[in-house]
Amino acid sequence: MDRFAEYRGVARRLGVDAVGLVPGPNFTRALGQAFGTNERPKLVIIPAEGEPAALMPNLELGSWAQVDFPGKTFDWMDQTGYGDAFAALAGHLPLTSLAVEGQVMRVFVHHALAAAYPGLQIVDAEREISGLRTVKTDADIAALEQAIRISETALSDTIAQVRAGMTEKQVESILVGALFANGADDMAFAPIVAAADNSARPHAHARSDYQIRPGDALLIDFGGISAGFCADITRTFFVGHASDEAQEVYATVLAANEAGHRVTRAGVTAHQIDDAVIGVLEASPYADRIRTKTGHGLGRDVHEAPYIMRGNHEVLAAGTVFTNEPGLYQLGGFGVRIEDDVLVTETGCRSLTTFPKDLTVIG
Amino acid sequence: MDRFAEYRGVARRLGVDAVGLVPGPNFTRALGQAFGTNERPKLVIIPAEGEPAALMPNLELGSWAQVDFPGKTFDWMDQTGYGDAFAALAGHLPLTSLAVEGQVMRVFVHHALAAAYPGLQIVDAEREISGLRTVKTDADIAALEQAIRISETALSDTIAQVRAGMTEKQVESILVGALFANGADDMAFAPIVAAADNSARPHAHARSDYQIRPGDALLIDFGGISAGFCADITRTFFVGHASDEAQEVYATVLAANEAGHRVTRAGVTAHQIDDAVIGVLEASPYADRIRTKTGHGLGRDVHEAPYIMRGNHEVLAAGTVFTNEPGLYQLGGFGVRIEDDVLVTETGCRSLTTFPKDLTVIG
Repeated sequence: MDRFAEYRGVARRLGVDAVGLVPGPNFTRALGQAFGTNERPKLVIIPAEGEPAALMPNLELGSWAQVDFPGKTFDWMDQTGYGDAFAALAGHLPLTSLAVEGQVMRVFVHHALAAAYPGLQIVDAEREISGLRTVKTDADIAALEQAIRISETALSDTIAQVRAGMTEKQVESILVGALFANGADDMAFAPIVAAADNSARPHAHARSDYQIRPGDALLIDFGGISAGFCADITRTFFVGHASDEAQEVYATVLAANEAGHRVTRAGVTAHQIDDAVIGVLEASPYADRIRTKTGHGLGRDVHEAPYIMRGNHEVLAAGTVFTNEPGLYQLGGFGVRIEDDVLVTETGCRSLTTFPKDLTVIG
Repeated sequence: MDRFAEYRGVARRLGVDAVGLVPGPNFTRALGQAFGTNERPKLVIIPAEGEPAALMPNLELGSWAQVDFPGKTFDWMDQTGYGDAFAALAGHLPLTSLAVEGQVMRVFVHHALAAAYPGLQIVDAEREISGLRTVKTDADIAALEQAIRISETALSDTIAQVRAGMTEKQVESILVGALFANGADDMAFAPIVAAADNSARPHAHARSDYQIRPGDALLIDFGGISAGFCADITRTFFVGHASDEAQEVYATVLAANEAGHRVTRAGVTAHQIDDAVIGVLEASPYADRIRTKTGHGLGRDVHEAPYIMRGNHEVLAAGTVFTNEPGLYQLGGFGVRIEDDVLVTETGCRSLTTFPKDLTVIG
């Protein structure tokens, strides 16, 4: 079996000689092992036909050996630089055109390729290469579910400890500790733990100088990484009690989230889902609090295609996973967001997130 | 005062029309505010002379307004794409050559620039642009010290709780919780918490299936971020007791670290420091356990120039901050690394890290 068959297929479909991958989610998927992005170029070239080739810093050869790469590897040392290795690669594997990940490959690698391969046509095939990750395998879904399970357990552990008088920073500390204690390999992103007016800022930072008060909204948006896959979950709680307005806003956001779940099945477009979700918010008395679209694809990247927004007429296939995360944000007041990670199926969808969504008063 | 004067100077020194910055440490430094790297291009063009210009996604205009940018901004919507905004930018600000950060700018931005500016010469000026960050200001050093203080307090809090029988994962959980509790905005990288044989792997992952035993080495390499600056600290402890061999290895690594401090002052080269540090390890009975160079620059990036390694004859200026992190790693046995964050001064150096380095038995 050819482990690179899908990438060769991309090269053939685009009519280019090869696909070039650099460290990132596609590289990890193709090679079965993660390599870091840093000042040292690392590159794998997968031609439409024939043996692949790689370029690696000498000091990574130990990790690289574990990949069992079925082609020649050109290595280089920090002291001498990578120019000769690129030239040797070009001598070994001539190319006139190369498809790359335009969102991942950086300009210094592009320039090194252009220098080693004069006249090389470098095509941005981000969509086609990363598109191979859009439909998840059973193993991908199992890894996502594991990341989500770890994250949900951490969230349960955390809210059990929240009390009025704590700062957002204290809650954040409990949450990240719980994530790692429950087995996360890393955080998918720096968590958002935001109370009261801070909850109305979609990308708020936790404060150490504000003590959470009874009646506050407490929005927690976070996720752990497990086996290379990211969770991304938001729940909004209320501390001590929830006002009538808070209850109404919460019910509106929940209805929008549920409308998204209802409309989702293989064959609908990203536009249709966003239209259903945002339509609920627009029809409410809180339409002026809309700030964001429905969500984004989720997998090895915490933000990946498809983007769930009006105007994106991409059809979703079964096996796609995306975030359904409507919110209402009253600047100076409070915000509510409810975010599930949703698997598209032939007949509908399944929320991989199972944390309860009923309005929950804590503390 | 022209806030972009240094960047204009880079353009003039390189003989190009302008410098182009994309989100990352240089962008944050130049604009005074962090913007995320994602699928949406964001770009600032600072010409050698005249008014700068920017390209921003429409949905970032709220954050962008806070920058008070002294030039025209071209925005674009997800639904229509960014091609027209690049074309409008090119019409407004003609360019024939542009210096960019080759390690930060991604190929899709390079391609969008090339499409909007036919024939544009795009020069990789990573070294010159990021080089503006090498010599730290007093404010930079204060931020680094704050990140280090937060991290050291978290480390104290953590080791006070470590007991034989805990897993590495449990210790990691305490550490990350303590980092955020003490005020870190984020982690500079996923921490390394590695005991026994795992401590001999320079990039180990914490295990949940190994219980720390008396006599184990426990290597902790981590750092928090505060005000955009990264700490990067390693200490190696011993649980319960340290064997004679452990004590000897520890003393050797500490001597290497101290040799690095002794040789450091403005005017020495990165090569000279690494030579002094690695020389101590090479002269010891443990030379076969050497795996790594001395260290790397530290600031807004957790790894930045200068790289402290033999063959790098870059002269260090006062105000440079780098990691001095020698280690000895016996595969299958144990590893010891001691890492300080060091500020180069005219007459010597000052370790911003002040956590004790005497061999410490914990638990």
